[in-house]
Amino acid sequence: MRWSQAFIPTLRDDPAEAEAASHRLLVRAGYIRQLMAGAYSLLPLAHRVRAKIRRIIEEEMDAIGGQQFLLPALHPAELWRRSGRYQMVGEELFRFHDRRGSELVLGMTHEENMTSIAAAELTSYRQLPQIWYQIQTKFRDEPRPKSGLLRVREFTMKDSYSFDVDPAGLDRSFALHDAAYRAIFRRMGLDAVPVAASSGAMGGKDSTEFMVRAAAGEDHVVHCAACGYAANVERATSQVAAVDDADPPPTPERFATPGIRTIEALAGFPGGAPADRQIKTLVYVLDGTPTLLLLRGDHPLQDQKLKDGTGAIDLRPAAADEIRHLLGADPGSLGAVGVDGIRIVADRALQGRANLTTGANEDDVHVRGVDIDRDIRVDEWLDLRQVTTGEPCIRCGAPLEVFTAIEVGHIFKLGTRYSEAFDAYVLDDEGNRQIVQMGCYGIGLERNLAAVIEASHDEKGIVWPVAVAPYEVVITVVKLDDAATAEAAERLYAELEAAGVEILLDDRDERPGVKFNDAELIGIPYRITVGPRGIAAGEVELTERAGGATEVIPLSEAVTHVAELVAAART
Amino acid sequence: MRWSQAFIPTLRDDPAEAEAASHRLLVRAGYIRQLMAGAYSLLPLAHRVRAKIRRIIEEEMDAIGGQQFLLPALHPAELWRRSGRYQMVGEELFRFHDRRGSELVLGMTHEENMTSIAAAELTSYRQLPQIWYQIQTKFRDEPRPKSGLLRVREFTMKDSYSFDVDPAGLDRSFALHDAAYRAIFRRMGLDAVPVAASSGAMGGKDSTEFMVRAAAGEDHVVHCAACGYAANVERATSQVAAVDDADPPPTPERFATPGIRTIEALAGFPGGAPADRQIKTLVYVLDGTPTLLLLRGDHPLQDQKLKDGTGAIDLRPAAADEIRHLLGADPGSLGAVGVDGIRIVADRALQGRANLTTGANEDDVHVRGVDIDRDIRVDEWLDLRQVTTGEPCIRCGAPLEVFTAIEVGHIFKLGTRYSEAFDAYVLDDEGNRQIVQMGCYGIGLERNLAAVIEASHDEKGIVWPVAVAPYEVVITVVKLDDAATAEAAERLYAELEAAGVEILLDDRDERPGVKFNDAELIGIPYRITVGPRGIAAGEVELTERAGGATEVIPLSEAVTHVAELVAAART
Repeated sequence: MRWSQAFIPTLRDDPAEAEAASHRLLVRAGYIRQLMAGAYSLLPLAHRVRAKIRRIIEEEMDAIGGQQFLLPALHPAELWRRSGRYQMVGEELFRFHDRRGSELVLGMTHEENMTSIAAAELTSYRQLPQIWYQIQTKFRDEPRPKSGLLRVREFTMKDSYSFDVDPAGLDRSFALHDAAYRAIFRRMGLDAVPVAASSGAMGGKDSTEFMVRAAAGEDHVVHCAACGYAANVERATSQVAAVDDADPPPTPERFATPGIRTIEALAGFPGGAPADRQIKTLVYVLDGTPTLLLLRGDHPLQDQKLKDGTGAIDLRPAAADEIRHLLGADPGSLGAVGVDGIRIVADRALQGRANLTTGANEDDVHVRGVDIDRDIRVDEWLDLRQVTTGEPCIRCGAPLEVFTAIEVGHIFKLGTRYSEAFDAYVLDDEGNRQIVQMGCYGIGLERNLAAVIEASHDEKGIVWPVAVAPYEVVITVVKLDDAATAEAAERLYAELEAAGVEILLDDRDERPGVKFNDAELIGIPYRITVGPRGIAAGEVELTERAGGATEVIPLSEAVTHVAELVAAART
Repeated sequence: MRWSQAFIPTLRDDPAEAEAASHRLLVRAGYIRQLMAGAYSLLPLAHRVRAKIRRIIEEEMDAIGGQQFLLPALHPAELWRRSGRYQMVGEELFRFHDRRGSELVLGMTHEENMTSIAAAELTSYRQLPQIWYQIQTKFRDEPRPKSGLLRVREFTMKDSYSFDVDPAGLDRSFALHDAAYRAIFRRMGLDAVPVAASSGAMGGKDSTEFMVRAAAGEDHVVHCAACGYAANVERATSQVAAVDDADPPPTPERFATPGIRTIEALAGFPGGAPADRQIKTLVYVLDGTPTLLLLRGDHPLQDQKLKDGTGAIDLRPAAADEIRHLLGADPGSLGAVGVDGIRIVADRALQGRANLTTGANEDDVHVRGVDIDRDIRVDEWLDLRQVTTGEPCIRCGAPLEVFTAIEVGHIFKLGTRYSEAFDAYVLDDEGNRQIVQMGCYGIGLERNLAAVIEASHDEKGIVWPVAVAPYEVVITVVKLDDAATAEAAERLYAELEAAGVEILLDDRDERPGVKFNDAELIGIPYRITVGPRGIAAGEVELTERAGGATEVIPLSEAVTHVAELVAAART
């Protein structure tokens, strides 16, 4: 492609609204333009990168026996009612009516559609295993679309679904996907860490997320450098150092705490207690039911753990008036001692603890000497607390690190969550009806594109790995009006194209500095600089974008040398 | 691919609901399944065909300098208000609100989105011409989705947009697309006839549709076998043989026509007139304005011509009570003689006519001796009549044929319809502001897939051209449990795959008859039959799906021979 004819609208300055590096660079380097919040037009350079990512995904999915489908984005709402997700998923699901008054939704994922096909068409174990995938547009009405392509309302996903006759088959299909995903990320140049994750609204049991460390990431990964333990903070656990509780008094003891409203204040209050010997009492409304949540004073609540542990769909902190109505006090003096008739859920770190301090459900009064087994009627013990940096690893005890990351892929063992809803059964080799075991597996194409940039850029612009670069080589012509230079550049362009190299010829009537800057900004892996002095000496310059190393090579060897370099870097 | 592992759910019988051949075969041969009215899941075989069609389109678009984009399907309603299409397009446009209450629509096409990018980013004639395209999902809430993939509510379209500095540039971009489209259809094996067409809601002046003759088609093409004239019936014209009107009387003459309500009845009524000497009077409401439409008695009204000619957006026949209120009579005795204060639009075939008969706006009374110039106050002369079979060609006078066809592509000269709405201007080489000249160009991928089947099938199933076949060759193993046969088939499979042939190995434990029928049903161009008798003699059978010719070839030459055959047939 000739740059003079290409549509690459680079900008001189960073866009004002962009914070994430990928967002800033994608706009500035002319890859994307925003249409509205959470919806971007991909311009030609972005399309080329996306096409390469798509191809890598297709190759790896085909290699594990995946068969490609294409399913509709428009679904009848009825399909989502059948799985129960119509009710479970909130405002993220776009819902509307067609001209005949039927309710439709825009697919966020396609478990329902795929499972209904499987239920109708698969009847025998002989037809299994099957791995079905598609690369298709998903819609999610995100509450806060942000960071360019990292969190949008419309995006392309490779979603696949595995169907097996038994759990061992599911394990194999899951392992195949795990390996394929690792290959995909490796080929894109992404260092993606597999971590244990919450399955969230998708349902099912085990799931693994692939995480790329990045400042712009919205996920938090808990990681142990010593033993390799890694989990999403939504699911991570850690060891809790034992706290030496003195024996509690025979009954809890109320005491006045004028003006004391926080864990920290009570820790500093005479007669109070350190945070790890307090009980923090939160009031949430879970699917309409007010619930007390108890955690150790210094342990934060992890919302997703609360969702996963209770199975609640609709979940919110109670309002101040609801709390007063329920417990007779304001937040700051709440507690569960003696409370009856309200559901109480406690974090496991409190199990067996005694001699604790908590609110007395009377403003400016607390209770100490609380033995949790003796004094509080806990309905359910769950893992509710969020792991924080420095806590001991659950496996090896070394201090944990928490870092922000981008989720670039997520694979789930769904089990029978959807096959039950859609009656997907097959006959096994003994003629018995077996429910189909399912997995589902997703990669967002545009998010991966952005993640590569987050992981690979510098102050000058994007630094594409060759495998996903929009063009592999740019030829920068330094003096267009020098006939020998122009001719040499044209010949190189034609010969490199004939050699199968994807090449951009910068034939614009611009100053060399502008051309160099643009080539670096858009991130082309190799630049061949063709100028009059070099041509006179029979030489061109070859510069690698990553690192910036430049070598002078004979013009006569340029095509072979560059074609070999590029071919070697493609895989 | 091994058939035993492939998901190809063929059916023993034709689906009950399918009328069009492509619909019937796509369902029966396991290519598609319906999700709801107008929405189909493409199963793996269909996806493979679609991927090849996509690739052909991409190659031809790239060859004319097209640059690929990917734009969102979700649009802010505001974008469509700006072009005026929000108001113009009716219920076909899916409209709804997001969680923040903003109105969104699902894109039917992308003139608005593309033009807004062009307006923001193109500033100089030096950046032109540009051809931008995408291959993307479109949504249209069709009133009557039908015929499988031929008329759906969600489909993939290649839509492209050209931007030029002047009308001559637009002509060039249009000609490039015309040539690319011809190449695309030729490569898919489609005999697509370019015809002059109405631009409809798209706006702009000239447009060409590419039409494939098919019984299942919903379009009607007027064609002259003698000179090649071809046009959509929505736009076609023909010669009108002169009618010898006698001189009219000095004033029109009313006469009683008891019980006469139709053109035919009046033609047979004593004192009446042949249909070609009558005026047919229709009453329509155009954007709220009642309008009389006058046509020659034997000429049908063409609705799209009425829309195009008047520019009306909302158009319907008047109701009986509206007509009586307006003219004082019921349909059957309507006329325009002496009518004042109501808009009158007449078909050009009536121009200059005299001594005609029409209704008197009094039940059971007509008027004869009408001189249209003298007696009727026509506000506007338009081409309103629909051409019918046998009329003389507008160019050469030979009799015209009208046939049903599938529209497989449509290219439009938009001119400045959208660039005006979005302020898309560039500076020309003299520094003057020039409005950008636009064209737009569309091909529906799944409709083309279905059109190939409509054009190429027989009583046994689909007959794919090699260029778009899901697999190029099927190896049918006749006796799986014969070791030499199985081994030879496996070797052929491996070697043909290595030779780059797309191959399906029918290794299912089924009777040969079932395998032959399935291979023919799904339409694989070449079948290699491997059986014990042949293998013993060192031979296999090669059968061509189109025509069914079978030849016996030496096993040792099979790979080379088949690979050459296939390679030659690909283009």
